[in-house]
Amino acid sequence: MSTTARQIHLASRPHGWPTLDTFRMVDVALPELTEGQVLVRNTVMSVDPYMRGRMNDVKSYTPPFQLDQPLEGGAVGEVIASRSAERAVGDMVLHGSGWRSHAVLDAAATRVVDTTLAPADAYLGALGMTGLTAYAGLTAVAGFAPGDTVFVSGAAGAVGSLVGQIARLLGAARVIGSAGSAAKVAHLLELGFDAAFDYHDGSVAEQLAAAAPDGIDVYFDNVGGEHLEAAIAVMNRGGRVAMCGAISMYNSTEPPAAPRNLAQAIGKELTLRGFIIGSYQHLAGEYAQRMGAWLAADEIHVDQTTVEGLDNAPEAFLALMRGENTGKMLVSLS
Amino acid sequence: MSTTARQIHLASRPHGWPTLDTFRMVDVALPELTEGQVLVRNTVMSVDPYMRGRMNDVKSYTPPFQLDQPLEGGAVGEVIASRSAERAVGDMVLHGSGWRSHAVLDAAATRVVDTTLAPADAYLGALGMTGLTAYAGLTAVAGFAPGDTVFVSGAAGAVGSLVGQIARLLGAARVIGSAGSAAKVAHLLELGFDAAFDYHDGSVAEQLAAAAPDGIDVYFDNVGGEHLEAAIAVMNRGGRVAMCGAISMYNSTEPPAAPRNLAQAIGKELTLRGFIIGSYQHLAGEYAQRMGAWLAADEIHVDQTTVEGLDNAPEAFLALMRGENTGKMLVSLS
Repeated sequence: MSTTARQIHLASRPHGWPTLDTFRMVDVALPELTEGQVLVRNTVMSVDPYMRGRMNDVKSYTPPFQLDQPLEGGAVGEVIASRSAERAVGDMVLHGSGWRSHAVLDAAATRVVDTTLAPADAYLGALGMTGLTAYAGLTAVAGFAPGDTVFVSGAAGAVGSLVGQIARLLGAARVIGSAGSAAKVAHLLELGFDAAFDYHDGSVAEQLAAAAPDGIDVYFDNVGGEHLEAAIAVMNRGGRVAMCGAISMYNSTEPPAAPRNLAQAIGKELTLRGFIIGSYQHLAGEYAQRMGAWLAADEIHVDQTTVEGLDNAPEAFLALMRGENTGKMLVSLS
Repeated sequence: MSTTARQIHLASRPHGWPTLDTFRMVDVALPELTEGQVLVRNTVMSVDPYMRGRMNDVKSYTPPFQLDQPLEGGAVGEVIASRSAERAVGDMVLHGSGWRSHAVLDAAATRVVDTTLAPADAYLGALGMTGLTAYAGLTAVAGFAPGDTVFVSGAAGAVGSLVGQIARLLGAARVIGSAGSAAKVAHLLELGFDAAFDYHDGSVAEQLAAAAPDGIDVYFDNVGGEHLEAAIAVMNRGGRVAMCGAISMYNSTEPPAAPRNLAQAIGKELTLRGFIIGSYQHLAGEYAQRMGAWLAADEIHVDQTTVEGLDNAPEAFLALMRGENTGKMLVSLS
């Protein structure tokens, strides 16, 4: 019994902005299962900003995507055949082989998720890597303490909207967000942010300074460039930056912007710390408990934007790059 | 009994490089001592790069020098009159009122130093703030661990030459320094640096990459600009930068250079942390013990450049800015 899978391959490495030509849909015959493997039919997959980096042929913390090979990313699917005693047909599993309709996986490369507790897509968002990124970045990387004023860029994105809400729940004095449209700014205020601004509306530095009259203590950086420079300028002594992403640079072919005021970090005793979530898996249990409680008490609002159909996954990724999503961007495959 | 003091005042705020016109020698009559005060005749004073920052009218961790007021800085002198039970005539004391022949000080603003253990100038250098800056920056700020490869810029300077030697004594795998002349590079190799280069000899990035084939784990930054960018480029995962100074920018009237590769800090999980030594005084006791032992065992070589006479202090400062010193730059007033 051979299964055909539809897969999205990397057709070419983008120089600057990716386009639909970056992707190619391919039908492949999957191999037979060997002992210990499962066949998974994916039902939902994640598209994330970090995937842009993997499209470049650059050595990084994750290897680059390979040309003419399927893209990868978080997905949840149903086990439809199993040669593993650990996984039964019907199990819903989280794994890293998104961008395809079906996948043959070692059982050990999958994690069973309980879809009676939360819908499958939650395990890609608030209860998954996205949420842990927000939580670990804020607490372990930036050393958040109650009473801190927190600024987060890309605040209407999947990670950013959780950062702001978690900061508020943990006792931030003030939470400020930046986003890319008036509608997103309005939404951030509904989520409980104390102040928010549209970075298209003028200088980030001026808007941030106006929103943070007493300065900021923590900056959660999803954007880089002008945002980082503006944050350094208003940081209080001992301030901390969690460097999570730099989406403003991902598709740029210009030399990247750099914070020309970085030397202020000396006198202000600032700490800038980059992180990748793979190094913070030890916080996953603690996080799942806290987020589970917040969700159960309806204290966190989870935003997501869902696109239907694997065929539309490339366009979903391009829309994410353009900032058209609010919250987590998902592709439903069922 | 009134004492006349010769003082060096800030005559004008430099725009770009300071000149002799930045300074003015002034004779002033000192006030009579009040209860609890001492009169100190200075014998040696320190000139340091950080003083350049205080010549600007910019709020920072220390207030700016005031126009037509005496400059300040570390000095050691002899108590020649005392109205304090805590200080006797003949005591040698460390204090912050350099740039002048005599000072009237509250006894509490002075610290008695034992010149039978070490010469007076050691308390401004290896046994003083300079040494503590090297030690605290390397250990507490950069989190140095044995086996790390360490790069220090301005390595022939007062702080830099101690950073490299302390790193070696604490078990660095490899110590690399940059400096501004062939003679300094040769001197660094004599001090036990494993590699050193002259930043005038070509691209800092290329020279550093050649000197650090296995990358670096710690960068002690005295220079900023191109050096910081080069260090980020070769840093290993989890690398740490102690941001101590940015002398390449102090006299620049151009917009400062910034590390255009700063976003590499994300994937490499780098930490950049600025510091000022005032926040690490709790390490002074531990440091004095270790450095005392190293000096007693002749395991550390202390470089200094001494200029004679208060009249020559402005020129000593300008020479420091031009990098003409090796090790600590001092002015002898005796």
